[in-house]
Amino acid sequence: MDLNLIPPMLGVVGLVAAFIVYLIVMKRPAGEGKVAEIAEAIHTGAMVFMKREYSIMSAFAAVLAIGLFMAFPSWHTAAAFVTGALSSAIAGYIGMYTATRANVRTTTAAATEGAASALSVAFFGGSIMGLTVAAMGLLGLGSLYFFFGSDPQHAEAIHGFGMGASVVALFSRVGGGIFTKSADVGADLVGKIEAGIPEDDPRNPGVIADNVGDNVGDVAGMGSDIFESYCGSMIACIAIAGTFAVSSVLGERQNLMFLPLALASAGLLCSIAGIFIVKLASASAPATALRFGTFGAAVIFIAAAWFVISALGISSAVWWCVVAGAVGGIGIGLITEYYTGGAPVRQIASDGQTGAATVMISGLAVGMKSVTVPVAIIAAIIFVTSVLLPDGQGVYGVGIAAVGMLATVGITMAIDAYGPVADNAGGIAEMAGMGKEVRDITDGLDEVGNTTAAIGKGFAIGAAGLAALAIIAAYIKTVGTHVPGFMLDISNPKVLMGMFLGGIFPFLVAAITMRAVGDAAFDMIQEIRRQFRDIPGLLEGTAKPDNARCVDIATKAALQRMVLPGALAVLSPIIVGFVMGAHALGGLLAGALIAGVLLALTMANAGGAWDNAKKYVEKGNFGGKGSDVHKATVVGDTVGDPFKDTSGPAMNILINVMAIVSLVIAPLLTH
Amino acid sequence: MDLNLIPPMLGVVGLVAAFIVYLIVMKRPAGEGKVAEIAEAIHTGAMVFMKREYSIMSAFAAVLAIGLFMAFPSWHTAAAFVTGALSSAIAGYIGMYTATRANVRTTTAAATEGAASALSVAFFGGSIMGLTVAAMGLLGLGSLYFFFGSDPQHAEAIHGFGMGASVVALFSRVGGGIFTKSADVGADLVGKIEAGIPEDDPRNPGVIADNVGDNVGDVAGMGSDIFESYCGSMIACIAIAGTFAVSSVLGERQNLMFLPLALASAGLLCSIAGIFIVKLASASAPATALRFGTFGAAVIFIAAAWFVISALGISSAVWWCVVAGAVGGIGIGLITEYYTGGAPVRQIASDGQTGAATVMISGLAVGMKSVTVPVAIIAAIIFVTSVLLPDGQGVYGVGIAAVGMLATVGITMAIDAYGPVADNAGGIAEMAGMGKEVRDITDGLDEVGNTTAAIGKGFAIGAAGLAALAIIAAYIKTVGTHVPGFMLDISNPKVLMGMFLGGIFPFLVAAITMRAVGDAAFDMIQEIRRQFRDIPGLLEGTAKPDNARCVDIATKAALQRMVLPGALAVLSPIIVGFVMGAHALGGLLAGALIAGVLLALTMANAGGAWDNAKKYVEKGNFGGKGSDVHKATVVGDTVGDPFKDTSGPAMNILINVMAIVSLVIAPLLTH
Repeated sequence: MDLNLIPPMLGVVGLVAAFIVYLIVMKRPAGEGKVAEIAEAIHTGAMVFMKREYSIMSAFAAVLAIGLFMAFPSWHTAAAFVTGALSSAIAGYIGMYTATRANVRTTTAAATEGAASALSVAFFGGSIMGLTVAAMGLLGLGSLYFFFGSDPQHAEAIHGFGMGASVVALFSRVGGGIFTKSADVGADLVGKIEAGIPEDDPRNPGVIADNVGDNVGDVAGMGSDIFESYCGSMIACIAIAGTFAVSSVLGERQNLMFLPLALASAGLLCSIAGIFIVKLASASAPATALRFGTFGAAVIFIAAAWFVISALGISSAVWWCVVAGAVGGIGIGLITEYYTGGAPVRQIASDGQTGAATVMISGLAVGMKSVTVPVAIIAAIIFVTSVLLPDGQGVYGVGIAAVGMLATVGITMAIDAYGPVADNAGGIAEMAGMGKEVRDITDGLDEVGNTTAAIGKGFAIGAAGLAALAIIAAYIKTVGTHVPGFMLDISNPKVLMGMFLGGIFPFLVAAITMRAVGDAAFDMIQEIRRQFRDIPGLLEGTAKPDNARCVDIATKAALQRMVLPGALAVLSPIIVGFVMGAHALGGLLAGALIAGVLLALTMANAGGAWDNAKKYVEKGNFGGKGSDVHKATVVGDTVGDPFKDTSGPAMNILINVMAIVSLVIAPLLTH
Repeated sequence: MDLNLIPPMLGVVGLVAAFIVYLIVMKRPAGEGKVAEIAEAIHTGAMVFMKREYSIMSAFAAVLAIGLFMAFPSWHTAAAFVTGALSSAIAGYIGMYTATRANVRTTTAAATEGAASALSVAFFGGSIMGLTVAAMGLLGLGSLYFFFGSDPQHAEAIHGFGMGASVVALFSRVGGGIFTKSADVGADLVGKIEAGIPEDDPRNPGVIADNVGDNVGDVAGMGSDIFESYCGSMIACIAIAGTFAVSSVLGERQNLMFLPLALASAGLLCSIAGIFIVKLASASAPATALRFGTFGAAVIFIAAAWFVISALGISSAVWWCVVAGAVGGIGIGLITEYYTGGAPVRQIASDGQTGAATVMISGLAVGMKSVTVPVAIIAAIIFVTSVLLPDGQGVYGVGIAAVGMLATVGITMAIDAYGPVADNAGGIAEMAGMGKEVRDITDGLDEVGNTTAAIGKGFAIGAAGLAALAIIAAYIKTVGTHVPGFMLDISNPKVLMGMFLGGIFPFLVAAITMRAVGDAAFDMIQEIRRQFRDIPGLLEGTAKPDNARCVDIATKAALQRMVLPGALAVLSPIIVGFVMGAHALGGLLAGALIAGVLLALTMANAGGAWDNAKKYVEKGNFGGKGSDVHKATVVGDTVGDPFKDTSGPAMNILINVMAIVSLVIAPLLTH
């Protein structure tokens, strides 16, 4: 059998596994009456958002597809682009569809069977997204590789797949990020502060939008983000290996090109094993069960990678690159956990004693300081891979390290998507007025979700940084095959100019997206205030809020405001590349990468730390809820919301979109 | 006569001019009674701080001087280092000494003669610093060039001068920045909020420290910052020209090496002319007078540069580089004025209506967005100079552009130093209980000072960025003369690793300095609270506060906390250079430069915008003083204080210190 058939076939296996998990989840009771009604409203809101988001995205993607079709001599790149965009969109749709079915089943499980059962349902709900992301990657990219990979004339067309995935990710992340935070901030500000009603109160017209937002941001947004890093790192490896000699000390070129897909295939199987482990351990504390699953899958994967690499006759040095990636990923995750959960969080809470300003200064300092170790780990991975694979092959090792980090995406993404399912389950319980015991269980699940989400974000940034780096390396090598002697010398004024220009984009996009959340939240606030004013009996609980209108406002606000950053990210490399040339474009990517990684880490970790500082005070420290310290930390948390859920994550994608678009147009750059 | 004698001789002329201005200022009445007493306390506090700061700095510098003496085969580098450090330290000392004499004379002039006279005194007070900075640069660097410049064996030793200036600047900026903000925040927090007494109230024990801090930060700190960019850009040009062929299309090598000193000499004379212009225009509005002087000096300088360049037989393309620098500098200044004074400021104030969190989000977004135009201008200067001077000589043009921006430092620095003199004059009037008319005059002067300070900061960042860039280029060329074929290829893993590591430092130093301000302010708050508690009759005005103790606390806090960032900046290039090699060090510099410029602009402009948003509300907008909007903007301003006066400015120096240390050790790097 043709080895190249294995990845797409395993993709099908992954989809089947996801479908089985879906059936298991759907067999659980969905609740009835008010519970079912609320759940349906969330589900419908999410699906409406997805539909409208996808229609704008389709228009944008269609323009790009036509552009690619006309710019390239053959149709292959455009076809790959469409495949990539479709694969990502399908994964996101499936994930959203199932997560908004699993949420209410988690609530019901918590109410009728207890914590262990609720954990299972929530985690299975997330697993569908995890498995689908991994499976669609293997199916889509694996099929393309099967058809185009062996034909040197069309191998470069595969890059288009990454571009498709990235464009979808950009819109999902930015649009989803704006939606979720405008709904969150709007609902909280009017509900909690002005109307004086608790969080997730069914009288609040914004509360359904808030719950929809959790899915939109953390399921669809996060999923598409991980999907594009996952596929991007594989594509980079394929592209870099494609420039190697037919046979080298590392192994046969064809096998080196195939390796990332082989590793991802093994990773999918390991993820399924990890999901079983979590299920088996679901009687223990939720945090333990999830940790067992993740680490278990990673350990099995590292062992499996050894066999894959040996079987393909590839040097064991490459295996060490896999290990470096996996260890580095865990390192970044752990340091993220420290900055968003350890002593720095208590320091921020303590600084709340002198007011909101010191909370801000303290949190920003924590965020900025938190870049040190993760960036040093990235530098160390660059160093280690360059020693393991000398003679300019180190960048292949960087790509493989990223693949190593992301191969068990099936389970890491499952845990990311578990968070919003658990969060939603709590929201539904609250809105339906279920008892304190139910709420306690869902709160416990949610808390674990928050920590794992912080780690997942650190992990995603690390992986995205390495993936972008590998894609940039692939860009340099690809231009080099067309422009002999091409290199990015920092002394070259074009490279230098590009680096400065590149540095602008992360800061500019961060500014635009933060502003967008502020403006969208303002629209939301106006609408919620209007409903409280215009609907008689709403606050007394005798009339129903118009939830759908709030979802609609958040949807419109998000979709309008996601276009500018999206266009900036896609067009900047095209304009710089064709107007200023390949050297300036290379510099642009380097500048954007450095600035983007630093800003992403700062924003994500400052946001996570502020969030948990507020929660730390709410647990009764420094005066607890309602105290002045609490108010000061609420300011921090509100600033942290767009930091960690909108602008910070947008950075990952920004640099990957810029890199992959550059890689796609690389063959067209002649100077 | 030897042409090379002109710069040091003009340095002497500049010092004489400064001395004449000093005599004019000192002839003004110094006030008596309470006024004189307060002024004396500020003067003494400032001098004590300088003395203690310089003693720590001397120890650090001595270690470095010994290190340089042992590391280099000849004593010349160590001698140049000591000369550079001494030149900067002397300029700072003279500036502080005279600024704290001019402040009270401004108060008296405002009380007895009115606005025009007060403007003259305040501006003359600042001019002494401006002239001294320019003069010490020409005298120190010019003398070294006269002695070492023509001897190819020792020409590289001149780099040591820049290192000396940078180390002094680093400590002055960081130490001064921590001092001024800890005193400011501490005095405000306890005085205004807890004790309920107005700003600059003589009962507040921290108020003298606050006034000392204005001088420490904005006179000594800013002066040493500008001094090191000024000398750094000249040194970079000398170093780059030193690697040219003896005779090229641009001109004779010896003349190209001499050009930056010649331009600075012309700039000094133009600055003196500009100071006359301000004096002549002092009857008009303060803002107009200052603007006339600055633009007048710049225009005369551009014309003078034409003659200098022609006289030295240098291509007119180089003159266009001067023009590019001057125009770019003005462009950066104007855009800074917009972001810290225009529509964005009103937007932040308006966002105060929904609380402190939206003020924070809005201000951070303004800061991040504000990087776009300045960085694009830097990129444009790189592009323009590379077109004007092709064949890899463009970097010389970048250096000359920086020299062009900084040549009229005599007047731009005069206007920077004018700010704290005017601010102090107002503080003294308030503390001495002088009438509203006096305070109105000093407030008017102060307001102009704030705007010019914001522009000056933008300008300083732009110039520092270009200077650093030129120094990095000089580093690459210098290593190239020792290691044949040396180049910084981004694909080289060492370069890439260095870039990531370099990106860490600006974020880390920003975090450390922000934290330092927080901690130092805390010490200050404790002491002021103690005095209010322990000194009976203090709040009633029947007892005197122990001002000296507060100055002492701020001094200790600042000096303790400036060492770590200082050591990081100096040691990082040494360690990376010797352990990881010249490629990694080059990458380190590039990464630090990009991240540093972006972060410096973000922090300086966000801080300036928050400051002015608060002032905009205080003028009666959105409810005016005491309203909730005002409270929200005060939070923004408090966060902005360390942003704009401590961490932001520290970035300029950080990148310059790292670059110049690298240039100094370049001849010792063999791999």
